[in-house]
Amino acid sequence: MKLVSFSINGKKSYGELKDGFVIEAPKELLKRYHDVSAAANLNELKCLFEQESSDYQYDLKDIKYLPSLQRPNKIICVGVNYPDRNAEYKDGSPIPKNPSLFIRFPSTFTAHLNPLIRPPESEQLDYEGEIAIIIGRPGRRIKKETAFDHIAAFTLCNEGTIRDWLRHAKFNVTQGKNWSRSGSIGPYLLKFKNKEQLINKNIQTFVNNDLRQNDNTKNMIFGFDFIIHYVSTFIELSPGDMLICGTPTGAGARFDPPKWLKPGDLVEVKVAGFGSLINTVQDEVV
Amino acid sequence: MKLVSFSINGKKSYGELKDGFVIEAPKELLKRYHDVSAAANLNELKCLFEQESSDYQYDLKDIKYLPSLQRPNKIICVGVNYPDRNAEYKDGSPIPKNPSLFIRFPSTFTAHLNPLIRPPESEQLDYEGEIAIIIGRPGRRIKKETAFDHIAAFTLCNEGTIRDWLRHAKFNVTQGKNWSRSGSIGPYLLKFKNKEQLINKNIQTFVNNDLRQNDNTKNMIFGFDFIIHYVSTFIELSPGDMLICGTPTGAGARFDPPKWLKPGDLVEVKVAGFGSLINTVQDEVV
Repeated sequence: MKLVSFSINGKKSYGELKDGFVIEAPKELLKRYHDVSAAANLNELKCLFEQESSDYQYDLKDIKYLPSLQRPNKIICVGVNYPDRNAEYKDGSPIPKNPSLFIRFPSTFTAHLNPLIRPPESEQLDYEGEIAIIIGRPGRRIKKETAFDHIAAFTLCNEGTIRDWLRHAKFNVTQGKNWSRSGSIGPYLLKFKNKEQLINKNIQTFVNNDLRQNDNTKNMIFGFDFIIHYVSTFIELSPGDMLICGTPTGAGARFDPPKWLKPGDLVEVKVAGFGSLINTVQDEVV
Repeated sequence: MKLVSFSINGKKSYGELKDGFVIEAPKELLKRYHDVSAAANLNELKCLFEQESSDYQYDLKDIKYLPSLQRPNKIICVGVNYPDRNAEYKDGSPIPKNPSLFIRFPSTFTAHLNPLIRPPESEQLDYEGEIAIIIGRPGRRIKKETAFDHIAAFTLCNEGTIRDWLRHAKFNVTQGKNWSRSGSIGPYLLKFKNKEQLINKNIQTFVNNDLRQNDNTKNMIFGFDFIIHYVSTFIELSPGDMLICGTPTGAGARFDPPKWLKPGDLVEVKVAGFGSLINTVQDEVV
């Protein structure tokens, strides 16, 4: 079941993506949960994953994708989470003991098939293909052994970055990671059933069909279960929270000269079984 | 007009603090805005600042303070914003060109007269006295010249920190700044009328009546107007957003040996005209 958020004729909705069509959720369900976040924040995503069919079917070409989760409760991202990624920093430092974490706001993400926005302030828009997990069962100080039980759903993320603003200040990457619609979430949510859906998965990012990032989640320095355990040590994880779990080596910044995204580019983040998250790039009109 | 959020007999409410009493907002207003954030997020705080009196008055000893703004839209904090603070890092670096920014979640703040929580994972709970401004009029790429027009209200913040978790990872201070109820917001919101309410103000932090932090907002490296201008460059500022504007030198970490907060301590953040934000310290019961 592919749970897709979309708008049709300017109206926001959600439903199931199936055989090239979107089957809108039944009216009663749309009334109970006005968007996917409304269900996610109550840990009731399963009501959406098990939704009955309705008579409202739309051709994919008629809908506009929305971010698969539009109002995540908290969005916490992991930096530098693949060994080659740590080596890219070339500072001779050993593999870190704890994950680097930063926070993004929902408005920094657009949706599948929508343009990533390159602002006039920078030419350094960069891609980062990642996996995003959505929390279902809440918890604080969650044990690593039971961490997977707290995942409700997952999807893909292009954790787009304005690279020169990442180090704009003395500490923290906040301003490089929070440009409006610089990243993307989607194409749809998948129900989490077991950890095999997430571990040992190839994750790839293509720019104009050129393979730029290519690694496997088995190489993550901090696994999904450890991330849940670690974050929940200091703050309660709540239903509807989104954890974005790190990107492989090969972002545009790592090339010499760097390969920044530019208008007209097509970026695709891909994991087998997750679908493809595809975005164009557009200059912002100010 | 001192706009205070509180609970009475377990029911959340808000009203005016006056002459040692809390006058609850009129029923009709409480119905329209179920909490202060509901008004703040619509840029309608002025309806609360201009509220009529009601017949419901409570003695201060009968209410429990709540954070003055319970559901800020975004919370963005400025690090290292006083010159002496930059010097404290003793790395010989010049004054930074851009502010270091990090993000906190609402659940990391408690309220006036409530305990800051020291978790069993660390003995390094530290205070940071700051000023918090609340955005009214939204904007993107706000000019410094008109930035003050976007402020709706202000209050005090103890931007409490778990110091050893600040550098737990290679980058970013996220995990040191997001421990549950490690900081505090209050005691009440004041309506922003003009910039003289914020500039050239002494800000002081006391621990058990011992003066630890003492500086003046005129010394801020990045003024309130610049912070608004800078942040709004990359993300739209929305009604109900909170910007926490940096702490003077003298946090507990800067003493040798460091002076961490411990159970039984009383911390007070004070700015003339803002009131005092007072918190005790309590060990978390896990």
